[in-house]
Amino acid sequence: MSASTPVDPGYSKAHTALLFVDPYNDFLAEGGKLWPLVEVVARSVSLHQHLKAISDAVRKAGMQVFIVPHHRAEPDDFTHWKNASPYQLGASAIQVFAKDSWGGEWFSDFSPQPGDIVVKEHWGSSGFANTDLDFLLKQKGISQVIIIGLIANTCIESTARFAAELGYHVTLVKDATAAMSAEAMHAAHHINGPAFAHLIVDTVQLLTLLPKA
Amino acid sequence: MSASTPVDPGYSKAHTALLFVDPYNDFLAEGGKLWPLVEVVARSVSLHQHLKAISDAVRKAGMQVFIVPHHRAEPDDFTHWKNASPYQLGASAIQVFAKDSWGGEWFSDFSPQPGDIVVKEHWGSSGFANTDLDFLLKQKGISQVIIIGLIANTCIESTARFAAELGYHVTLVKDATAAMSAEAMHAAHHINGPAFAHLIVDTVQLLTLLPKA
Amino acid sequence: MSASTPVDPGYSKAHTALLFVDPYNDFLAEGGKLWPLVEVVARSVSLHQHLKAISDAVRKAGMQVFIVPHHRAEPDDFTHWKNASPYQLGASAIQVFAKDSWGGEWFSDFSPQPGDIVVKEHWGSSGFANTDLDFLLKQKGISQVIIIGLIANTCIESTARFAAELGYHVTLVKDATAAMSAEAMHAAHHINGPAFAHLIVDTVQLLTLLPKA
Amino acid sequence: MSASTPVDPGYSKAHTALLFVDPYNDFLAEGGKLWPLVEVVARSVSLHQHLKAISDAVRKAGMQVFIVPHHRAEPDDFTHWKNASPYQLGASAIQVFAKDSWGGEWFSDFSPQPGDIVVKEHWGSSGFANTDLDFLLKQKGISQVIIIGLIANTCIESTARFAAELGYHVTLVKDATAAMSAEAMHAAHHINGPAFAHLIVDTVQLLTLLPKA
Repeated sequence: MSASTPVDPGYSKAHTALLFVDPYNDFLAEGGKLWPLVEVVARSVSLHQHLKAISDAVRKAGMQVFIVPHHRAEPDDFTHWKNASPYQLGASAIQVFAKDSWGGEWFSDFSPQPGDIVVKEHWGSSGFANTDLDFLLKQKGISQVIIIGLIANTCIESTARFAAELGYHVTLVKDATAAMSAEAMHAAHHINGPAFAHLIVDTVQLLTLLPKA
Repeated sequence: MSASTPVDPGYSKAHTALLFVDPYNDFLAEGGKLWPLVEVVARSVSLHQHLKAISDAVRKAGMQVFIVPHHRAEPDDFTHWKNASPYQLGASAIQVFAKDSWGGEWFSDFSPQPGDIVVKEHWGSSGFANTDLDFLLKQKGISQVIIIGLIANTCIESTARFAAELGYHVTLVKDATAAMSAEAMHAAHHINGPAFAHLIVDTVQLLTLLPKA
Repeated sequence: MSASTPVDPGYSKAHTALLFVDPYNDFLAEGGKLWPLVEVVARSVSLHQHLKAISDAVRKAGMQVFIVPHHRAEPDDFTHWKNASPYQLGASAIQVFAKDSWGGEWFSDFSPQPGDIVVKEHWGSSGFANTDLDFLLKQKGISQVIIIGLIANTCIESTARFAAELGYHVTLVKDATAAMSAEAMHAAHHINGPAFAHLIVDTVQLLTLLPKA
Repeated sequence: MSASTPVDPGYSKAHTALLFVDPYNDFLAEGGKLWPLVEVVARSVSLHQHLKAISDAVRKAGMQVFIVPHHRAEPDDFTHWKNASPYQLGASAIQVFAKDSWGGEWFSDFSPQPGDIVVKEHWGSSGFANTDLDFLLKQKGISQVIIIGLIANTCIESTARFAAELGYHVTLVKDATAAMSAEAMHAAHHINGPAFAHLIVDTVQLLTLLPKA
C-alpha cells in the first residue's frame, strides 16, 4: 500500500460512491462548536481544499454522492437511556449539531446537490448503524465506498469498519479528514486503517484513480 | 473515567456478560503463528494472568461467558471474493487459526466450559458482524458486555464499536488484551476507546466491580 | 396457544413495549388513500376501538410506546433504484403517506404523546429494517414487543418476523390490526403467525395480561 | 405479474444467485421427520422434479449457488433462553435436522457441489438473520436472488422478506417449494408474496429467464 503506487481499485461511476460524513458547520466552519477541536489538524492537511477537490471531481465523474449525517442534537436526547455513552452525553451537553441551528446546517461548500442521497442520521459513530445506508448503497448498485469528512478516528473509522464488515471495498483518504490530534490521525491511517481498509491514499492519489467523466 | 475511581456500572449476573475474543493457540501459545507479533505487549501487561483472573472471577460470579471466535482459515477462503481486504489475504496466506490445526484450537486455559456459549465465527474484526452474537446476548438478557482477548485495536475494538452501536454498555480492560505495539494499545484505550466505550478499566479495577457470587 | 387461556408472558413496564405501526390518516381516516382497502376488515374487528383501548391501557400501565412509521412518500422516491418492488412503485404512484400532506399525518387519536419514541421511517415493511428500532428498544431495556397497527400481513408481520429473529418476545393482537381481506387476516394469525410469534391474542385477552399501573 | 408473461428481470451469472433453503433429508426424504407434513403439497407441485430442474439449470448457466441451512438441532438448544418461540421449542422437542443425524444431512440430489457456498446456519426462519448470507452475496457481487426450498410461508418467506429489506431483487418460484397446506402455499404466493417480491413465477417460466451458459 505504498503511497506512490496504490493498486488501481477499478473505480467506476456504476459501482463506486463517495460517502461524505458530517459536513456540518459545527465541524467545518469558523464559529462551529467542534471546529476548535479539529482546526489544527484540519489546517495541517488542507482539509477544506481536499474535501472540495474530491467532491468536485466525483461529481464531474458522474459518481453518486451520499451525505452521511450524525444525529442533530435535541435537548431531551438520551433521556432515560440505559446506555448512552460518556461521549454522547458530552456532545449532548453542548448540543453539537443542534437541530434547527446554524451548527447543524450543512457547511455551505458541501451542501447536498441534486441527485445526492442524504441517508438517515446516525446516533453513534457509524453511518451504517441504525440507518438506511447499506440499503441505499445496494439500490444504487454500489460496492466500493470512498469515505471522507469528520472525524478520522471516530465516525470515519467506524463507518469504514462497518463498511468492510458489510462486504464493501473501502477507501480512506488521509488528507480529506481531520481529528483532534496528529496522533489520532496517525492511529486512524497507519495503525488501524490497514487492518480493514482496502486502500489508503491521499487526495492527489485519489484523483488519479477516479473514472473519467 | 479516572483510573482510580471508575463509575460503578452496576454489573450483575443477570445482565452482564464476558465476551472472550479469539482465545486461540495461534494468538496465545508459544509457537502460535501470531504470538510473536503480540508477545512483547502481552508480556508487558501480564496478559495471560489477567485473562485467567477475569475468566475465573466472572465464572465464580455466575456470569455468562461468550466465546467470540474468528473464522478458522481454510485454503480456499476468499476465492473469487470481490472485496477481501489486504489484511484478510495476508492472514489467509499463512492460514491463521487454520481449521483442524493446533493453532485453531482453544488455548488450553481458556477452553469453553459447560454453560459457555460459543458464537458463530466472524470473517472480519467484529464479533457481531455476520454472526449470532447480538441474538444470543438477547436470549440471555444481556445488556452489558466486558470485552477481553485479542487484538486490542482490531477485533476487540471492532467488537466494542459494534456493541455500542447496537445499544450495549461496553467495558474495555486495558491489560486483558494485547496488540502489535504499545502505540496500538495506546490508540485503542486512550485515543479511540473513550469515543465509544462506557468504561475503560484495568483488571484490578474490574475485579472490584464484579458482582458477588 | 388457546384463545381462552394464553400463557402469561410476564409483561412489565420495565421490559415490555408497544410498537404502534403506521398510525397515519391514509390508513385510518375516512378519506385516507388506503382506508378503502382495509375498511371492511377494520370495521369487522372494531379496529379503532381496539387500538384506542390498547393504547390507553399501556400508557396507563406506564409502558413505553414506540411509533413505527412507514416512509412518507416524496415524488422522486425510487428514482434510479435498482430494486424498487412493484408494491413500492405502486404506493409511490399514488403517493401514500405523502410528506407534508394530511394523509401522512398521524391519525388524531393516535398521535405521539410526550415520552413516546418515534423511530426512523422504514422503506419497506419491517419497522426494524434500516431504522433505529432495535437500538432504541435496547436503550429502554425492552425485550418484549406487542405489535399493533397496519397491515396485518405486511408491515405488522414483517416487523414481527424481524423482532423474533432479533431475539425479542413477540405478541400479535388479532383484532388490533386489519388487512385487505379476511383471508389475509387468517394468513397472518393462523397460518404464519404461529411460526414466529410467542403469543397471539385478542384485545380483551391482552388487556388482562398488561401490568397494573 | 401475469403468469404468462413475467417481466424479464435481466438475470445474469454475474449478479444473480440461487438460494437453496434447507435441502435436508428431514424435509425432502421418505422417512424424514418433516416430510409427512409437506408431502401432500410437495407431490402436488412436483417439488423434487422442479428443485432438480432449477438446480441443474442454474449450475449449467454458471450461476452461483448458496445453500442456506437451518440450525441443526442439539439436545440442549434453547436452554435458559428468554425468548425461544413455541415453534422453535416444538422443533427442538423432536430434534428436527438433528446434528450428526441422517435427517440433518443434505438430501442426496441437492448436496453442495464444488463452488457452492454454504452459509452459516440460521436459528429462526430467515437465512439472513444472524448469518453471513448478506456479506457473502456482496462478496460475489450478487444483487438478485432466486429463492427455492422449504417451507414456502416460513423460511422461504422470511428469507425473501429480509432480502427485499436488504435491497435485493427477489424471485419466488411457486412450484419449487412446499408447505403444510395448499392454503399456506396460497398465502405465500398470492396474499403475501406480491407485497415484497419482485417476481413470482413457476419453474417453467424461471427456466426461460435464466441466462445462457
